[in-house]
Amino acid sequence: MPRKRKELMHHLSGFADGEGCFNVSLKKQKTARFGWVLDPVFHVTQHRDNRIILEMFKRVLTCGRIIEKHGQKDTFQFMVDNRRQLIEKIIPFFERYRLIVKRKDFELFKKIVIGLEAKKHGDLNEFKKLLEKAFEMNQSGKQRRYKQNDVLNDLDLLGSSEAIRQTPEKKKAEDAKKR
Amino acid sequence: MPRKRKELMHHLSGFADGEGCFNVSLKKQKTARFGWVLDPVFHVTQHRDNRIILEMFKRVLTCGRIIEKHGQKDTFQFMVDNRRQLIEKIIPFFERYRLIVKRKDFELFKKIVIGLEAKKHGDLNEFKKLLEKAFEMNQSGKQRRYKQNDVLNDLDLLGSSEAIRQTPEKKKAEDAKKR
Repeated sequence: MPRKRKELMHHLSGFADGEGCFNVSLKKQKTARFGWVLDPVFHVTQHRDNRIILEMFKRVLTCGRIIEKHGQKDTFQFMVDNRRQLIEKIIPFFERYRLIVKRKDFELFKKIVIGLEAKKHGDLNEFKKLLEKAFEMNQSGKQRRYKQNDVLNDLDLLGSSEAIRQTPEKKKAEDAKKR
Repeated sequence: MPRKRKELMHHLSGFADGEGCFNVSLKKQKTARFGWVLDPVFHVTQHRDNRIILEMFKRVLTCGRIIEKHGQKDTFQFMVDNRRQLIEKIIPFFERYRLIVKRKDFELFKKIVIGLEAKKHGDLNEFKKLLEKAFEMNQSGKQRRYKQNDVLNDLDLLGSSEAIRQTPEKKKAEDAKKR
């Protein structure tokens, strides 16, 4: 049935407000600057019978992919994890067609994605701030694998060993930059 | 934040398309004409943290109530089970702000509610038709307590015992009406 494009957009935003998820997972990665990476992903999950709406998200947002949810053969996900697509498609969409329930999660998600894009995760203090935002998200949802304090302690250990490894000149320059 | 009323309606329709449920439960009831009753209810379920959107549904639809979900203290439901409210508020809302995923369930729900309102459940054959519609609903969801065939068999037994109890004149009149 025909439907005004704008009405469909608000409908999809409402649908995502319930069934969507803005998630920033935290993963250990030895090759990463500080041993951890933040991995933002937006997804909408549905039973295979309702795959049509996932196709609509894909078409309207002109990005992402539809996959079978790992280990759940009757569940599909529309998923966007490409940073460029998050910045150019997903964030503008939900800025225009505003959320209610997931508004706070979306705002945190947006800040993290923009922060990562600006390479803020290259600086330990900035990385910690992004991490704190990630831990603020989805608090009524599932438990996180890693506890915030454990990760921060791990980063602090790293921070002090980094400081030791730095030459005095380099350290002084870094400290000056922080002030 | 201010938001156009119409945009909010489409958003809420989209939200209900994901998190809402049009359900017609089937219950045994000795005092009912045929021993069974169909009980239509529309509800939207959310974590207590997101209660705000349930309040929005209640305000916008000007009906229903918000309750703690039985046995789940962190889950709330916006619920409408009053027949008049279903007919005057819920059905017109979703006719105007159309669903995608739950469109088919809504259409069946609507037919059942209108059928019950027209007292069609007073006639065994019409009741069976409503019952069949109820069994068509929410097929990718949870299992029903009663199997369709068991209920139909139960009704057929009742139908034949009714036929026996009827006087020949009454039976003839009933049969003529059916043709």
